[in-house]
Order: sequence, then C-alpha cells, then structure tokens
Amino acid sequence: MSKHLSKNKSSLLAIPLGGLGEFGMNMMVLRYGDDIIVIDCGMMFPESELLGVDLVIPDITYLKQNREKVRAIILTHGHEDHIGALSYILRDVNVPVYGTRFTLALAKKRLEEAGLLDKVKLREVLPTRKAEIGPFEIEFIAVTHSTVDCVALAIRTPIGVVIHTGDFKIDQTPVDGAPFDLHAFARYGNEGVLALFSDSTNVERPGFTPSERVVVPRLEELCRMAPRKVVLSCFASSIHRIQQVIEIAQRVGRKVAFVGRSMVDNVEIAHSMDLIKIPDGMVVRPQDIRAFDPKKLIVLASGSQAEPMSSLSRIAVDSHRFVTVDENDSVILSARIIPGNDKAIFRMLDHMFRRRALVYYDNSAGTIHVSGHASQEEQKLVLQLVRPKYFIPVHGEYRQLFRHAALAHQLGVVSGEVLLIEDGQPIEFTAEGAYRTEPVTAGRVLVDSGSLEAIEEFVIRDRKHLSEDGVVVPIIAIDKHTGKVESTPEIVTRGFLPSENTQELVNGAREMVLRTVEQSNSEEKKDWGVIKEKIRVDLKKYINKHTSKRPMILPVILEI
Amino acid sequence: MSKHLSKNKSSLLAIPLGGLGEFGMNMMVLRYGDDIIVIDCGMMFPESELLGVDLVIPDITYLKQNREKVRAIILTHGHEDHIGALSYILRDVNVPVYGTRFTLALAKKRLEEAGLLDKVKLREVLPTRKAEIGPFEIEFIAVTHSTVDCVALAIRTPIGVVIHTGDFKIDQTPVDGAPFDLHAFARYGNEGVLALFSDSTNVERPGFTPSERVVVPRLEELCRMAPRKVVLSCFASSIHRIQQVIEIAQRVGRKVAFVGRSMVDNVEIAHSMDLIKIPDGMVVRPQDIRAFDPKKLIVLASGSQAEPMSSLSRIAVDSHRFVTVDENDSVILSARIIPGNDKAIFRMLDHMFRRRALVYYDNSAGTIHVSGHASQEEQKLVLQLVRPKYFIPVHGEYRQLFRHAALAHQLGVVSGEVLLIEDGQPIEFTAEGAYRTEPVTAGRVLVDSGSLEAIEEFVIRDRKHLSEDGVVVPIIAIDKHTGKVESTPEIVTRGFLPSENTQELVNGAREMVLRTVEQSNSEEKKDWGVIKEKIRVDLKKYINKHTSKRPMILPVILEI
Repeated sequence: MSKHLSKNKSSLLAIPLGGLGEFGMNMMVLRYGDDIIVIDCGMMFPESELLGVDLVIPDITYLKQNREKVRAIILTHGHEDHIGALSYILRDVNVPVYGTRFTLALAKKRLEEAGLLDKVKLREVLPTRKAEIGPFEIEFIAVTHSTVDCVALAIRTPIGVVIHTGDFKIDQTPVDGAPFDLHAFARYGNEGVLALFSDSTNVERPGFTPSERVVVPRLEELCRMAPRKVVLSCFASSIHRIQQVIEIAQRVGRKVAFVGRSMVDNVEIAHSMDLIKIPDGMVVRPQDIRAFDPKKLIVLASGSQAEPMSSLSRIAVDSHRFVTVDENDSVILSARIIPGNDKAIFRMLDHMFRRRALVYYDNSAGTIHVSGHASQEEQKLVLQLVRPKYFIPVHGEYRQLFRHAALAHQLGVVSGEVLLIEDGQPIEFTAEGAYRTEPVTAGRVLVDSGSLEAIEEFVIRDRKHLSEDGVVVPIIAIDKHTGKVESTPEIVTRGFLPSENTQELVNGAREMVLRTVEQSNSEEKKDWGVIKEKIRVDLKKYINKHTSKRPMILPVILEI
Repeated sequence: MSKHLSKNKSSLLAIPLGGLGEFGMNMMVLRYGDDIIVIDCGMMFPESELLGVDLVIPDITYLKQNREKVRAIILTHGHEDHIGALSYILRDVNVPVYGTRFTLALAKKRLEEAGLLDKVKLREVLPTRKAEIGPFEIEFIAVTHSTVDCVALAIRTPIGVVIHTGDFKIDQTPVDGAPFDLHAFARYGNEGVLALFSDSTNVERPGFTPSERVVVPRLEELCRMAPRKVVLSCFASSIHRIQQVIEIAQRVGRKVAFVGRSMVDNVEIAHSMDLIKIPDGMVVRPQDIRAFDPKKLIVLASGSQAEPMSSLSRIAVDSHRFVTVDENDSVILSARIIPGNDKAIFRMLDHMFRRRALVYYDNSAGTIHVSGHASQEEQKLVLQLVRPKYFIPVHGEYRQLFRHAALAHQLGVVSGEVLLIEDGQPIEFTAEGAYRTEPVTAGRVLVDSGSLEAIEEFVIRDRKHLSEDGVVVPIIAIDKHTGKVESTPEIVTRGFLPSENTQELVNGAREMVLRTVEQSNSEEKKDWGVIKEKIRVDLKKYINKHTSKRPMILPVILEI
C-alpha cells in the first residue's frame, strides 16, 4: 500500500475527521466522486488544560472546501460524541440530517437552542429501511447500546458495501426487546463487504460486556432494602437504565421522581415516543419530593459525572431546591466514572458520606452499572459475521485502535488489510485495492459555548500563561511631541503575588521601567514597539530575579 | 462523646493536620501537656484547577502557635506524601527529624536542595529500637510497603500506647526478607493499646494485596521474550521493584541501565546503603545505551506518571538524549495509573504504540504492578492484632476513612470507640475517655516551588478568572490638575478574543470608557476609585453583550 493522490472518479474515499485517535467528536466522511456523506457529528469535552474552552469539535475544513458536494449527515445515535457538534457544523454546511426518531429528537433540541431548527431538514429513518443519497444506498441496522434507537449503517456504494457499526454492544436480552440485528450483519457478510468500520472503545476488555439487564438484581436489592429514600443517578440518555429503575420501583412499592434538566428532558422525549413506559401514578413531581414518604421514593437525578451545576452536585452540598440527602438515604451512582471526572465525583460522594447516606458507586458488591460498548468477544463476533475485505478500527484513542487492529489480525478473517488510521488520514478504495492518500486538514476546534466562537490555540496559550503566574501591566504616559515620560509608571498586577509582598517589588519595577525608557536612545524612543519590548524583557528579568515567577507582562505606552 | 475545651494537663491530644480527608500531605500531631511531636510531614500534588500551584502542604498554624512546644518530626517512610513538606515546615518550626536511614537520606536530598541541611538535626532510628522524646517513648516497628525502610510507630505516653501504622501492606514474602513485624503489633495488642491510627488508602479493595514478588513471573516472561530492548518504568522509590527487575535481568541475560534523575538518585542512595544489590558489570551507562545490543538490555526509567519533563515522557516523543523506542522494543508501565494522570499517561503510551513498540500497562495478561497499601483483610488483621480501645482511620479521602471506620465496626474488636475525624478536628484522650475538642486551624497551603512562597486562595481565584476569558485593561490618562482626559483610552487585551474580531469591539469600548468618564459628575471625577469601578461595570456589560464573555477587567487611571 502506498500513498498516492486520488484522481480516480470511481473510487471511494473514507476520510476520518474525528474519533480516530481520541475519545469523542466522532465524524467519518465518505466520498464517491462528487458526492459526500458524513457519518456522525460529535463533540468532546475539553481536557482541563484547555482553559475557558467549553467543548471541542472536529475541524471541518475539508467539508467547507467541498461544501457543494456534501449531501447529508447520517447519525447513528443520540449521544453527544455523535451529535453534539451538529449546531456548529450545520452553520457552515447546511445539509439534511438523517437519524432515527429518538436521535433526531435529541438533535432537534440542540438545533432549537441554537436557533437553527427551521433552517435544517431532518429525515427520520427506521431500522431495516433504506435511504438513497446520491450513489450511496444506506440500510439502517438496529444495534444495542446504552441509549435507545441506535443503528449501524450498511452503505452500498458502486464499488462495494461499507459497514459502520456506530457505537454498539451485543445485548442478547435488551430491555426494550429490540435485539442487535445479527442477521443483517450475517447477510452482508455472506454477500461480501468491502470495508468494516467498528467501535474500538472497550477493546481493552476481554470477554463479553454484560447485558443491560444484569444491573437489575443488585439495584432491586438496594431499592428494596433501602431504609429511606433512594437517589439514583445515571446518564440522562440511559433510557434502558431508567426504564429498569421504574420497573424496580413498581416491584418494591416505590414511586419515582425525576430531577435535573437533562433527565427530565430525556424522559419526556422517550416517553412521548413510547420508548419508556411509566405506569400511571408512578411519578412524584419534584416539588412534592420533600413531603413524600422517603421510604416510598426513588429520585432519578442527572449529574452522575459531578458536573458543577447538575442536580446531584447540588444535592450533595444541600443546595438543591427539592431534594436533600439525609442520614440513611441511599445514593446510587449507576454510571461509569469517566477518567478525568474522578476527583470531582469522589468529592461529591464524600459529601454524601458526610451526610451519613448509604453510598454505592462501584460493582464490588453487585453490578450497578454496565458498559454500553462491545468487549473483545463482541468485537470478534462482528468481525466474524462481516468478514470484510478491509477493516478500519474507529472510535478510540490510538492504543485502542491499535489493539482493535491487533485483534482483527489475530482473528484472521480480514481477507484484504487491516488499516490503522487516524483523523485526517484518508483511505481510497478502488476495484484494485485500498490506498492511503494525502492527508487532509483535521484537528480540534475549541469552542466557547457562550459566544459559539472558535477559540484559537494562541488564545489558549495566553490563558495558560495568565493562569500560571498572572499578569503584570506596566504603563507609562509619553508626550507625543517631546517623547518625555509624563508620569510615574503605573504597574497593575493580578493573579501574581499576594499584595503584602508586592509594594516594594512594584516600586522597584517602576524605577526600572523609568530607567529603561530613559536609557534608550532617541531612535528607540520613537519606536514604541522597541520601547515596549525593552520594558517587557527588563521587567521579566527583574520579576523573575526577585520572585522566581514568570507572569505575562503587557507593557502599555499611552500617548498624550 | 461531647466537644469540650481541653484544660486537662494529663491528657493526650491527637490533632490531624493533613491526610484525613485527602490523598496526600499526611501529618498527625500528638500533644501531651507542653510537648508536641509531629508524625510525617507530607505534600500532595495540586488538582489541575489550582492554577500555577506546584505543590500543596498542610497549614501548620497550630504548630507555629505552639512553636516552643514542638519537640520533633517523626517520619514513617520516604514517600513525598510523608516527607515532601519538610523543607517548608522546617523553615517555620526547626526541630529534630527522626527517621530510618533510607528515609533520612531522601529527606536530606530535599533539605540540601532547600539549603537547609546544615540547619536541621537528623536522628537516625532503627526498627525495634526506641527513642525518648519528652513524655513520648517511641518504638519503631518494621512494616512492608512499596518502598524500603518503612516503619510504624508505637508511642508510649503517660496515659497509654498509641500505634500509628504509617503506610503499610502485609507482605508475607518481602523482597528484602524484612517482614512486617506482626509480633510487635501482637505484643502491644496483648499489653493493651489506647488508640490505633491506621492507613485507609486501599479500604475499597477486598482481600489481601498481593506480595511484591507476584510481579516476577509476568515481568520475567516479558523480559525473556522481548524481541528487542525493554524500557520499564516504575516509581523511583520502588526499590523492591527495581531490585526484582535487576534479578530478572540477570536470569534472562540482560543488563540494566538507569535513566531519569530520580531513578538514578534513588538507586544510588539505596545501593550505597546496601538496600539494593547490583551484581558487578550489570549496569550500562546511559550514554552507552544507543550502542548496546538491544536484545541484551533493560532500561529502567522514571516518569511512570507521564510527568512533563520526565525520562519516559521524553522517550515517548523521541527527545531523550540517550534512549529511543523503536519498533518491537517493549515498554512496560510497572506502576499504578494515578487518577488524574490517566490522560497524560495514555497520551504518552499512544506515542509508544505509534512507534510500534510492544506496550504493557495493565494486569490483564499477568500482574506487572501491585499496590503497596493494605487491602481490607490486612486492615482487619492489624485491627485484630492491636484490638485498640479507640480506632482512628487515617490516610484517605472521606469515603475511605468512612469505610475503614465501617470495617472496624463490623469487626467488633474496638473496645471503646471508632473515631471518624478529619483535618483540624482534634481528639482528646484522658483516663476517662476520648473527646472531640475545639477544631484547630487546618487546611491546604498552596506553594509555588519556584519562589517557595505560599499562594493565597484569592490569587488562584484571579488566575482562574484570567484563565477563562482572559484580561481586558482599559487605560486612561487624566490631568491631575484639571481632571481632563488627556488621551484616547487605550484598551489592552490578552487571552480574550482572536485579534481579527477585536478591533471593532475595542473601538467601541474606547468610546464607552470615554463616555463613562465624561458623564461622571465632578465629585466622581475626583474619586478615581469610583471612576474605575464605573468603567469596570460599564465595560463588563458592554463586552458581555457583544461577546458573551466575562474577561477580567482591570481599569487603570494614569495621573499626569
């Protein structure tokens, strides 16, 4: 396989723009001739070093450069890492969005918030049905995952069938009775599949991921034995989990209350579509929780990741309007502790322990959470069923893609090649083979959700600098005619040193700035850029010598 | 048990100043009458939101207030969370420091770096030996842990014996042949123990922590089968681990090289004390690694937590002076992935995968790392042996202390009371019982390691503000006699918006500032504090309206 420039009109290009090399912001582009479709449109949450960044989305320069060729965005399911960038991307590339009913309902909510709803065409799809988009014929295949209404895609192109699993696990006993459509995968496998793109998230786990139903015995035990009310938190999109808790509540003689905006929204949407079944009289309104018999109540709350303003975080510090946690209440965290959130989550749970709640947060004494992603045996099963010519691991950090590739090698069912690629590294499929072509622009766009604006890397670097040792602003006023300094230099600092130690330092800095200006020759004095830089360098040395700190220094010359 | 003010001269106070409620900065103070001893003097690493903070140490206001009463600092072992604050605390409270040979050697290094070595008295102790300090008679008891030369303390006071475990596990087959001194614990248990303070770190783990030796089969297999060189990273203080790797190297016919400052330092110190045995001719110098047959080499590198400038981090991005990782080299992370470091560690390992190294980082195919802390069964064993009157869980976040307390309750061997306390909450022991007394000042002191200065919380808040939306500095020059504005206002921004969008905004802001000043009445104009605040408020509104951002605004008025 060699790199070459694609000139071939009758070839299929697969161009990963997100999710291959990181956890989140999934986006895979398929191009045949002059037609492009985009699979998923996800965001990811920023690492803590991305100061002031609210979310991260894929760089879609490639799509913008080929705007007139893009035909559609196809969504596999409604998680943020698959739909969260929609309102940003659609502003640049407004094309119809395909998805199942629940997925589109979640997408709608986001488009509505962004004021884009009436500008975007939404096309609802159904598992087993097909959509034709240019040269692509797409069959939607039901898969099981931690939310409802999830699909894989079988995409028939002029040079062969491509299967994209989306996110999946193989749940043999799904809560909603809608199984993973093994037969569809088998059928395409029989027919012959050009390329398989498959979810790598859980490749580090051997065996099978347990069925969603596996959480029932322990959750039921905890809810049955709880001496007082139960506060259970899971992801608001975990409709199956919520359904099971409602059924448990009924069996143990408790009612349920829903708190948290995303929890309430998701339950309402799912309920309106009959994707969640709530018996009449089961629901206690949030405002009635306080007066309700705690022995008869389960509160379903969002905020399992200790998001700062979420219900569970507020309950933990006793600042929730409707819910308190008191001695002998039970708190159940029925969710994964996502790496990076651990400290915040445990801080939150510590507050629950201090209130003498009974706190459950791991599977050590019985399963209270299962993953929604396929483990190794399920990944192997999909590879076996599909036995593609080419296999491309997707959705994972590099080591996960690597290990998924290794798994496929070990299995030996890939007749052509296992292709380990990352964002921006296209593969061209032709009748002859598969080739790596020239990289395209790909990367992260950092978004401030307040202004909806992209934040450039240099701004983050500045913020990082500011955040480390603060800022020092030396200011001098110079008479624009005489070049004479018209006042004592002013020095403003913030985030730098405690004020008690600053006065002496600031006085010294003032003298230093004055000296720097005075000792400059007349040519330098005319070029304020030079003067500013001299002040910056001298002040930096001075401050570092006296404090070992390196604040950002922003000299200002005021012309009067 | 009730809160009361201690007036009793013949009572024992236990005052936790660190490590009870957080992971790290361990420090327990014991006071009898006018004599105080301090057990451990640890630091912890800051959470990422503590911008510009290098390390966190306990607030020792209580010790400073009772400076003339403090007799000694007793160290249980040489980990940073037990000795890392020494050079800061000793500047305020210079007392003799007691510890075993290896522990003091590590302490010495830190004191030397801080220029304190010749100012501090170090007193070497030996397991089974005793030291008398005022009314305290302290026996040092050998315990096993992930570093060498670790002790628990049995402290005889006029009102009873107190046992403090330090950090421990119960390793039945210790690498150095020095076992956990079960007999000493049993002896004190027989005699009767007033209070036990015991390590809670691993209370969430059922069963026994495996012996350090358990890593040998898998590490030996990996080193034996490795097609090329092995790069193995562990904590530099894991002397047992390093010893075992050296022995493995010998058995599989490889030599070892040590890279990384802390790795080299620790090995040298341990070797000089005969705590690590290295056969002659086993060591390859770092500068000879490149030329050495990779099939015959194991490189021991520090940096298992992906610390930015560490050897392993630099090797990963191919910027290490002496070590590269190439295709089919093996990389073994023989260390815990500390929560919070996961993202950085996996980013580092991803680079290793990209170089086509064989990467091992978990115990899924055989144990390559074991913990140094006691699991539940070991914690129970210590409780059973000591069967104290009072039990106080130490070293853990609140939930861990809580669960350790619950474990003790369940066991039923504590004849008096299980006392769940946090930093700053003293317990007073008298002949009659144990009482919670008035809280003392306790908390975190944030340290900038460059300047060795404490950073106050408000400085961190300012940095946090700066880091989110950057800084905007509006500056006007006012004639001090006439009160007239002498120039167009200058607006300096940083970390705020990309420059392309700023010009228009800045022009508008200038006009706004000018208007704010002009529209102020003459009284306001004389009070620059008022003018500044008006500018700040108006500009804040203006910027938020146009950008949805809330930068820090620092108005400056220059008097000319």
